[in-house]
Amino acid sequence: MNPISLIKAKRDKEVLQSAEIEAFIHAYTKGDIPDYQVSAFLMAAFLNGMNDAETQALFNAMLHSGIVVDLSKVAGTKVDKHSTGGVGDKISIPLAPIVAACGVPVPMISGRGLGHTGGTLDKLEAIPNFNVNLNLQQYEQQLAKIGLVMIGQTAEIAPADKKLYALRDVTSTVEFIPFIAGSIMSKKIASGIDALVLDVKFGKGAFMQDEEKAKKLAETLVSIGEQCNKPTVAWLTDMNTPLGKTCGNWLETRESILMLRNEISVPDVEELTLTLAAEMIFLGKKADSFEDGYNKATEVLRNGKAYDKFCEMIQAQGGDLAAVHAADANLYPTPSVEIRAENNGYLQSVDARTVGEVCTLTGAGRLKKEDAVDFGAGIEFHQFVGDYVEKGTLLATLYSHKSTKESLAQTLAEAFTIGTTKSEAASLLKARYWKGEWK
Amino acid sequence: MNPISLIKAKRDKEVLQSAEIEAFIHAYTKGDIPDYQVSAFLMAAFLNGMNDAETQALFNAMLHSGIVVDLSKVAGTKVDKHSTGGVGDKISIPLAPIVAACGVPVPMISGRGLGHTGGTLDKLEAIPNFNVNLNLQQYEQQLAKIGLVMIGQTAEIAPADKKLYALRDVTSTVEFIPFIAGSIMSKKIASGIDALVLDVKFGKGAFMQDEEKAKKLAETLVSIGEQCNKPTVAWLTDMNTPLGKTCGNWLETRESILMLRNEISVPDVEELTLTLAAEMIFLGKKADSFEDGYNKATEVLRNGKAYDKFCEMIQAQGGDLAAVHAADANLYPTPSVEIRAENNGYLQSVDARTVGEVCTLTGAGRLKKEDAVDFGAGIEFHQFVGDYVEKGTLLATLYSHKSTKESLAQTLAEAFTIGTTKSEAASLLKARYWKGEWK
Repeated sequence: MNPISLIKAKRDKEVLQSAEIEAFIHAYTKGDIPDYQVSAFLMAAFLNGMNDAETQALFNAMLHSGIVVDLSKVAGTKVDKHSTGGVGDKISIPLAPIVAACGVPVPMISGRGLGHTGGTLDKLEAIPNFNVNLNLQQYEQQLAKIGLVMIGQTAEIAPADKKLYALRDVTSTVEFIPFIAGSIMSKKIASGIDALVLDVKFGKGAFMQDEEKAKKLAETLVSIGEQCNKPTVAWLTDMNTPLGKTCGNWLETRESILMLRNEISVPDVEELTLTLAAEMIFLGKKADSFEDGYNKATEVLRNGKAYDKFCEMIQAQGGDLAAVHAADANLYPTPSVEIRAENNGYLQSVDARTVGEVCTLTGAGRLKKEDAVDFGAGIEFHQFVGDYVEKGTLLATLYSHKSTKESLAQTLAEAFTIGTTKSEAASLLKARYWKGEWK
Repeated sequence: MNPISLIKAKRDKEVLQSAEIEAFIHAYTKGDIPDYQVSAFLMAAFLNGMNDAETQALFNAMLHSGIVVDLSKVAGTKVDKHSTGGVGDKISIPLAPIVAACGVPVPMISGRGLGHTGGTLDKLEAIPNFNVNLNLQQYEQQLAKIGLVMIGQTAEIAPADKKLYALRDVTSTVEFIPFIAGSIMSKKIASGIDALVLDVKFGKGAFMQDEEKAKKLAETLVSIGEQCNKPTVAWLTDMNTPLGKTCGNWLETRESILMLRNEISVPDVEELTLTLAAEMIFLGKKADSFEDGYNKATEVLRNGKAYDKFCEMIQAQGGDLAAVHAADANLYPTPSVEIRAENNGYLQSVDARTVGEVCTLTGAGRLKKEDAVDFGAGIEFHQFVGDYVEKGTLLATLYSHKSTKESLAQTLAEAFTIGTTKSEAASLLKARYWKGEWK
């Protein structure tokens, strides 16, 4: 494999052999090919495309760039979920314990927030002393013991992805389905799972705003999973409106805790969580059908077993259980600004993109990888799409230590559209992709 | 200028502002932008194209990345020639002294051979002790004194080109007209010339094999020259057949010396040399028309003044005049292999590409920049396109110290096509581009 010839072939729209792509990525991971040749290749592939076989080869190379965890000693069918990221997307936090409480082992490796979307790790770390940095042995042991573990990426898993992602990020080659799919699936398959449920989002607050592109991504992800003999199902979900009642790290974790304790009702988060849980329980062979899975998920949510499982995990990973139980809105006291309706009418839409960007700027997210996050910062919603509001009604509260919080609140106000006609929120669950078919 | 946004804009087929391109190239030259971002940009531009204004901006940035030599203290209109490179292309060696002998100052900065084409510097260095490494002050002084100087690239001239070329070479982004044009013109305009004559070659032995692409390159080069207020004319010339009777460093220099002394007749080299000389003398304001320039060039070639000027330059740059005068075929004794005709018939073609590649492998050229060249190695032709040959007629002699010389001779034999019908060599001078028109 000559890197210059490989770049030239892709530049000239030739189809590359799987072995060539794998050799190229392996040499890059080992440091034998410089960044500048890989970035030229990435741009050529981005512009000229990669077919399914090339995409699969890229994924394979990334998967085998590090350790592929063997969880076969842990009994049961291990199932994980991956979301392509959204605004207010705290689904993993209630979802994982619900599924685990139904007897399906959930080994979840999550990421941090970057840009306008949040990350599960940052939200979990808002629980004092909760440790997401387990090594792979601890990860396996906890999974075997309590059937649930939620950690961060380790260096041994798909190191090629880490190198490639950093390079894509600075060479404008991020938004390309074969790269996105390879990145997601290499990390997920390497984590030792047996099956996977995907939440592929489209809309203003999603990474893929275009619905058709999101569908294509879902198909690519499922195809890779199936080729690895890992049953994979994908849901296409709407991300035009923020999920749930809050956006921000402790705000979302607290919302999840209260939901797991049935102390608050969050219809959209609950609907999405139970749907994805039903799929995971079905793929994990603890339900005979999706409907059976849905019922079982609802049961453990209502009877508190999911919350108990959540607490078990928090304790196992060193988290402060008293803080979880207290679920104190003032755990991270943070100055606030109120956003009020400017006229009477129905709340017609809340722009998830604006919300995500403002939320990041409150301190809840990061613009650069190295940034620290502020656990108390974020946004709390008091009114939702379809609600009738009067001028002066409190729409949202913005929490931030930043000196810019007043102007952030002004920007946030623009996310709310109030009109004279009542519009229903779009259906959250758009379509399901399973065994090569959309339904 | 944010490099990531600039890459993205070109990736998305947007037209870039001149100031953005210039800032990007300047930052790269200074080392403020890494290779991996520039290579992604190069590939995006290669695949999505650059318009005339973008090409001009790239050229400008490269031109001003180093010193733009001011030769205004040297009297006269300084004119240079650039060839896009061919096989057996020794034209600069007889051309420059012919033009200088007509009173037009010729400040020529040349390159070395790479790949299948030779370089003027290597050929000149075959003259013992000839020094091509003058500094810019010596370059200006010699030009003022004798009206002729031939040196190699200096580090102060267009350093961005050096960096960009090295990067293009390893990222398969070489063959793109805006990059090629920027590279050629930045070096030429920076050398302090007032006008330029271009020899843009197409065909098997040329860098641009395709005639239409070569035409487009010629138009781009001329357009850049005109925008700099440097009158520029281009000739499109055929490079399917090697130029002249030899290929190799001392072989070609010796051929040039003998031609300047009127001791041999080399019709194709003479035709091309006098044509380009006529243009240079006209642009240098020492002739009233192309025809007048052609006559004056012919005169100084025939009366020996061009040879005298050549010797003056050799002496000024420390070269061994006795070796020039001797023009000894055995200056570099080299083992040889004969290539003979395998049947009777007319020599219909000699494949310049094969000749160029074999010539490089004899030791006359270099595969990598760091390679040393063998001055005595190369190929001498004894029969030419249109000649009738009999089986066993000596077609060519290959000179090489390489142990592979026998197999190289076999490969070289395949360059000769002998057939029953007599075919004329294609016209060498295909078209002339001047003031926006092909004629």
